[in-house]
Amino acid sequence: MFFRRCRIIAVFLVLLILPVLGIAKEAEPVKYIFLFIGDGFSIPQRMMAEEYLHKKGEPGLYLNTLPNQVLTTTRSADSFITDSAASGTAIACGEKTKSGQLGVDVSGNRRLESVAEVARDAGRKVGIITSVTLNHATPAAFYGHNVSRGNGYALGLDLIESGFDYFAGGGIDKQDDQKNKLYKGDIYKLAPEHGYTVLHDPAAIENLKPGSGKIIACLKKGALPYAIDHEEGLRLVDYTKKGIELLDNPKGFFIMVEGGKIDWMCHANDAATVLREIFEFDQAVQAARDFMNAHPDDTLIAVTGDHETGGLTLGFAGTGYKSYIERLEYQKCSLDAFKVKLTALQNEKKNSFSFDDVKELTSKYFGLDFAEKSQSPLAVSKEENEILRGAFEKSFKGKKTSATPYALGVLRVFDNKAGLGWTSTAHTALPVDTSAVGKNADVFNGMIDNTDIAKKLKPMVR
Amino acid sequence: MFFRRCRIIAVFLVLLILPVLGIAKEAEPVKYIFLFIGDGFSIPQRMMAEEYLHKKGEPGLYLNTLPNQVLTTTRSADSFITDSAASGTAIACGEKTKSGQLGVDVSGNRRLESVAEVARDAGRKVGIITSVTLNHATPAAFYGHNVSRGNGYALGLDLIESGFDYFAGGGIDKQDDQKNKLYKGDIYKLAPEHGYTVLHDPAAIENLKPGSGKIIACLKKGALPYAIDHEEGLRLVDYTKKGIELLDNPKGFFIMVEGGKIDWMCHANDAATVLREIFEFDQAVQAARDFMNAHPDDTLIAVTGDHETGGLTLGFAGTGYKSYIERLEYQKCSLDAFKVKLTALQNEKKNSFSFDDVKELTSKYFGLDFAEKSQSPLAVSKEENEILRGAFEKSFKGKKTSATPYALGVLRVFDNKAGLGWTSTAHTALPVDTSAVGKNADVFNGMIDNTDIAKKLKPMVR
Repeated sequence: MFFRRCRIIAVFLVLLILPVLGIAKEAEPVKYIFLFIGDGFSIPQRMMAEEYLHKKGEPGLYLNTLPNQVLTTTRSADSFITDSAASGTAIACGEKTKSGQLGVDVSGNRRLESVAEVARDAGRKVGIITSVTLNHATPAAFYGHNVSRGNGYALGLDLIESGFDYFAGGGIDKQDDQKNKLYKGDIYKLAPEHGYTVLHDPAAIENLKPGSGKIIACLKKGALPYAIDHEEGLRLVDYTKKGIELLDNPKGFFIMVEGGKIDWMCHANDAATVLREIFEFDQAVQAARDFMNAHPDDTLIAVTGDHETGGLTLGFAGTGYKSYIERLEYQKCSLDAFKVKLTALQNEKKNSFSFDDVKELTSKYFGLDFAEKSQSPLAVSKEENEILRGAFEKSFKGKKTSATPYALGVLRVFDNKAGLGWTSTAHTALPVDTSAVGKNADVFNGMIDNTDIAKKLKPMVR
Repeated sequence: MFFRRCRIIAVFLVLLILPVLGIAKEAEPVKYIFLFIGDGFSIPQRMMAEEYLHKKGEPGLYLNTLPNQVLTTTRSADSFITDSAASGTAIACGEKTKSGQLGVDVSGNRRLESVAEVARDAGRKVGIITSVTLNHATPAAFYGHNVSRGNGYALGLDLIESGFDYFAGGGIDKQDDQKNKLYKGDIYKLAPEHGYTVLHDPAAIENLKPGSGKIIACLKKGALPYAIDHEEGLRLVDYTKKGIELLDNPKGFFIMVEGGKIDWMCHANDAATVLREIFEFDQAVQAARDFMNAHPDDTLIAVTGDHETGGLTLGFAGTGYKSYIERLEYQKCSLDAFKVKLTALQNEKKNSFSFDDVKELTSKYFGLDFAEKSQSPLAVSKEENEILRGAFEKSFKGKKTSATPYALGVLRVFDNKAGLGWTSTAHTALPVDTSAVGKNADVFNGMIDNTDIAKKLKPMVR
């Protein structure tokens, strides 16, 4: 009798202790898995958005509230500062590779298996969604295998040969690269041979219903427009909701959603545009939360970044201990859109195009006040005025004109007034934060490496 | 029989489930508690040191290996970017206050209780150890109560009235401030009336044995010298080891150790000096680890920072995706020591003092190579040469001379060559990382606020 009782107690002990040690959790499958990756989305970017919302009296980012949060290192096999191909490969496949390589090991010879491929082979449905092009480094890390992230056409072929169920977002880059040695035809035209329906029309995409088969739902070309520029069309959250609708099935799914343009405008050091991309990214995470609320015992949501971009700091020498992140609201368009406006004005004004003209445009889109002795928090100082005048001349008064130097000068002055600093136009090695909620979320604890994400997820998608 | 078995199983269930839910852990006392605070020690600082050691082929920081790591927000009651008084108060007392205030609430009227005071009242021994002055903001947050961190004399009175058992490290600032309205005499002379033995002699401090009573073991004045400058005297790790030896007792202890000068040289943007301060801080944590190894079931070690300082980024525009943190080894003295050397050379050379003279000194202490067409990784470019020449003239060729502009110019050029950027000479709002190991360490999970540290520790010291 005593031994029998001991046996029963022993079984309970094992069942209860294993999860505490994190052993059982890693192996337990989860029916619905969402992995969100913010490109260039590290801790300063998360906290900048949080503080902006705080200053506005609005609720913070949903993704910052997830109960598990874990520091995640990002180095590539050959660099302290990773690129998106190596970090995408680490997150997707669980192994370090050299910067620039996708879905292959350090030598470039051994093909790696991504968590999405494991999910597919286990009979799950797989979705890959991004705000940038579908064969950009981060999404391609989940289906592509190439020593060069730049070989867009080869990655396009990998995409249509992946057998995944749903690709959505920006277009396929270099999809008709006739000089590529692998060229067989336009990827969009080859896709149906592999069972894909390709849709570019937003209304047709919105009308898709479960049972539509394998889908590529994307722009014809390029990335989604920046959220701050309010152009028409489907957004990241729309593609995410549609993906959830199409992929829900008894065997479960693995969905990866990338907020890819956070990175692009961190490279450009454009904080206000980054902010709106983060809000859109968070909306997509909220769509997953809504699904999880309906499937609370079967869903895991993980949110990470692939690296930091820009060397963003939440403080700046000129503003000392003060912070004015709320001033980012005065910026009304992205760097790219501002450059287009500058060039249009230059073309309109021709030879009379002057610093006064661009000052007016700058005030309109950034709220900067060039009036002497202005008391505005966005007053341009004499020194800043001269810096911007210099940038204007560099942009428009040389042999070859380009709006870039002036536009970047405006952003530097503007972001500094918000109490933000940037040190780089490349990536940095700051760790990112991986957050998780739902079934098995507690495997994300301690401090992890980006390769641990795939290592933790792969057993769950089998 | 069946019910009896069920009762036994139920007891096991409760005992095992409570820790999983984190309920029992928060309230359970821990006999020996160490709290390490790196001032200005956030994630970039931790990772810079880790990468330096990695490049040298040496083991990383011990503190980065602790199994629990948790992002920790730092804002003060009135600012996104905190100062050390408000963050010290949050960590020590568990409540937000305004920047500049110590151990009092936002209104300044209500006295807050620190975890150290709770430990004292529970009959434990308490030690406060720092590499800066004993009444600097961070250590003072554990015993001081004042609306102004600047009132050093009043904080000195709070110190000797605290009843804590061991204060060690730098001196007591303004300890004989005769103009202070509270002035009663030199703090060092008043201390014995409160039961303290004050020792400044390193040999006497080293000879202290358990049972020596209450001790103030510190420099007469100022902070400990920078580790990089290799001056004689006791170091943070020595004061920590002595504290452990003196405070071990059957009722347990609470020991706070601050690495305070990390912050000071982050303000100055001097990465190499910061690096050595971090190594010393980690040595102190290792002393606690050695103690924990002898008391594995009764010890908790927590390591945190109070805020980020300097806007340090692990990447820089000029070095792009490359990182050369190993180059910090070429710097041989702190900013402060370099300024002393510059001024000494100026006094020696008098009117003949030239840019060539300082170039030689700069090469000696930073490895910078001013030779034209130098192939050294530390080659000074033509542009950098002109920047440094300008800084030299600003330093030494005006009416009032000061080594500071030139020394800061050298640091900027040098740190950038290591692939590091800085954006501020103040603090920033980047969250810090709190790490923990030992009994109850798993209460440090998810994402926490700095006030949560005191909230989690207070029940453990009762």
